[in-house]
Amino acid sequence: MARRLMECVPNLSEGRKKDVVDEIVSAATSDRCRLIDLSLDPDHNRSVVTLVGEPDALSSGVLDLVGRAVARIDLRSHRGAHPRMGAVDVVPFVPVRETTMADCVQLSRQVGADIASRFGVPVYLYEESATSEDRRSLAAIREGEFEGFATKIKEPRWRPDFGKAEVHPTAGVTAVGAREFLVAFNVNLATSDLRVAKKIAAAVRFSSGGLRNVKALGFALEERGIVQVSMNLTDVKKTPILRVFDLVQREAERHGVRVLESEIVGMVPCQALYSAAAAALQLEGFTSRGVLEERIEEAFGEG
Amino acid sequence: MARRLMECVPNLSEGRKKDVVDEIVSAATSDRCRLIDLSLDPDHNRSVVTLVGEPDALSSGVLDLVGRAVARIDLRSHRGAHPRMGAVDVVPFVPVRETTMADCVQLSRQVGADIASRFGVPVYLYEESATSEDRRSLAAIREGEFEGFATKIKEPRWRPDFGKAEVHPTAGVTAVGAREFLVAFNVNLATSDLRVAKKIAAAVRFSSGGLRNVKALGFALEERGIVQVSMNLTDVKKTPILRVFDLVQREAERHGVRVLESEIVGMVPCQALYSAAAAALQLEGFTSRGVLEERIEEAFGEG
Repeated sequence: MARRLMECVPNLSEGRKKDVVDEIVSAATSDRCRLIDLSLDPDHNRSVVTLVGEPDALSSGVLDLVGRAVARIDLRSHRGAHPRMGAVDVVPFVPVRETTMADCVQLSRQVGADIASRFGVPVYLYEESATSEDRRSLAAIREGEFEGFATKIKEPRWRPDFGKAEVHPTAGVTAVGAREFLVAFNVNLATSDLRVAKKIAAAVRFSSGGLRNVKALGFALEERGIVQVSMNLTDVKKTPILRVFDLVQREAERHGVRVLESEIVGMVPCQALYSAAAAALQLEGFTSRGVLEERIEEAFGEG
Repeated sequence: MARRLMECVPNLSEGRKKDVVDEIVSAATSDRCRLIDLSLDPDHNRSVVTLVGEPDALSSGVLDLVGRAVARIDLRSHRGAHPRMGAVDVVPFVPVRETTMADCVQLSRQVGADIASRFGVPVYLYEESATSEDRRSLAAIREGEFEGFATKIKEPRWRPDFGKAEVHPTAGVTAVGAREFLVAFNVNLATSDLRVAKKIAAAVRFSSGGLRNVKALGFALEERGIVQVSMNLTDVKKTPILRVFDLVQREAERHGVRVLESEIVGMVPCQALYSAAAAALQLEGFTSRGVLEERIEEAFGEG
């Protein structure tokens, strides 16, 4: 029987002091809860911590991490390009192996309740864990940011799911939830015309009429003199990467522009790559049972 | 540290009597040597046994399998569509995890020597294990088949690598070697014109001027009224599947024919799918460290 695993990706509002981030992260890790990625962004003044662990080890590790972050991060003096409302801004749980979305929702609610009771930080449940439709969107919850929450939290509509309607003086509020694995996928275009990237982003993203489960923005990569369509794919099972790529490419053609290359930032589940390969090769009836390594894991009862 | 594993794919000259094949195969399997695929072909009167195991368990399992096959299969009465020269026709070893081609060559030579000394079956080393260039090709070794070997084996050029120059009366001779993982890849075309499939096969296969590491034949799929380009890809690291597919598609276009679908028969290494996905998505600088499950295996020291 394979080890049951979930991913958790706490976002910390500290992206400059590496020693502080390391100290906070070290509170979470153990034999059964591992750090698999850590990225600090000084411009955003924010860190993205990727943990994978067995559900019980992961939830207790994340709680310890939150405790240490609440002690070490003071939002009153926080400045950065990225919107934020808490020392630990957002804590999403993601099913990765032998765990379901329902397991993640359940765990996120327990962790949310514990964060509020142990550290006095009000908690909002979001995405799959949300208690109402208008709390599914993290952006909607975060609107107003740390500075605006003193009044926002008093509105009946924005009463926290856990904890009192009172912002933690230094650590703000935190969103906890469950979601599918998120793939950060960027496509670079052979043009310096930012309008093209913005038009393509608008064409492919859900919010303006494009593909479901796609968020997209157009950026300039100044140093390289090119532009980028930067996307978050929030459900690559339902909206596969290759379909998104093909649509970006098709839209680029409309503007007489070629795709230079693409990149995945961070990680991608193997199934998403299998599915891209199967689509590109027109493979009929392909399943992961056809993958040598999967069959070996099965035969040797590992993984 | 991951378990060291090799694959071994003995081909048996018995594809009709399931009970006999099962009995032979059961001689090989153990906790550390697993059967991951078994396919019997009654027309070919041949079975393909896919074993994966730790090198020592695999070599002793394969030797026991050969012993039982020599006892149970009599080539004097064997009839089938596929060319063959031995009860165990061919025994390739393939590196799959924490093992190298050099390890497989070494093991294949040891197993070859043991087959000759324990069972009195002359052995030819082929592919990567071959002792001369003209023995690399299995087809060249097998030419003349079981019936022709009584005289062929007496030619100085065809003296076996192990054992006496004397064919085993019922079990013939066996080829043992090491090779890369072989991917069986078929592309079906939306036409009933067999000449098109044969022309495309000739265009893409190495032997007639096409891509290296590609063997190809054109077949009719009578029942479906379509044709197929049936390929063996002998090194998908150097000659990736998507490049082969694209060439087949391009050649099909020349004949005004569309690709209906493709299929992988048996298994494919995950790296080959990652590489197809990366090529289709124009992913720059992608490595398997970007695959979530690979990072998890690494973090938890499993696999």
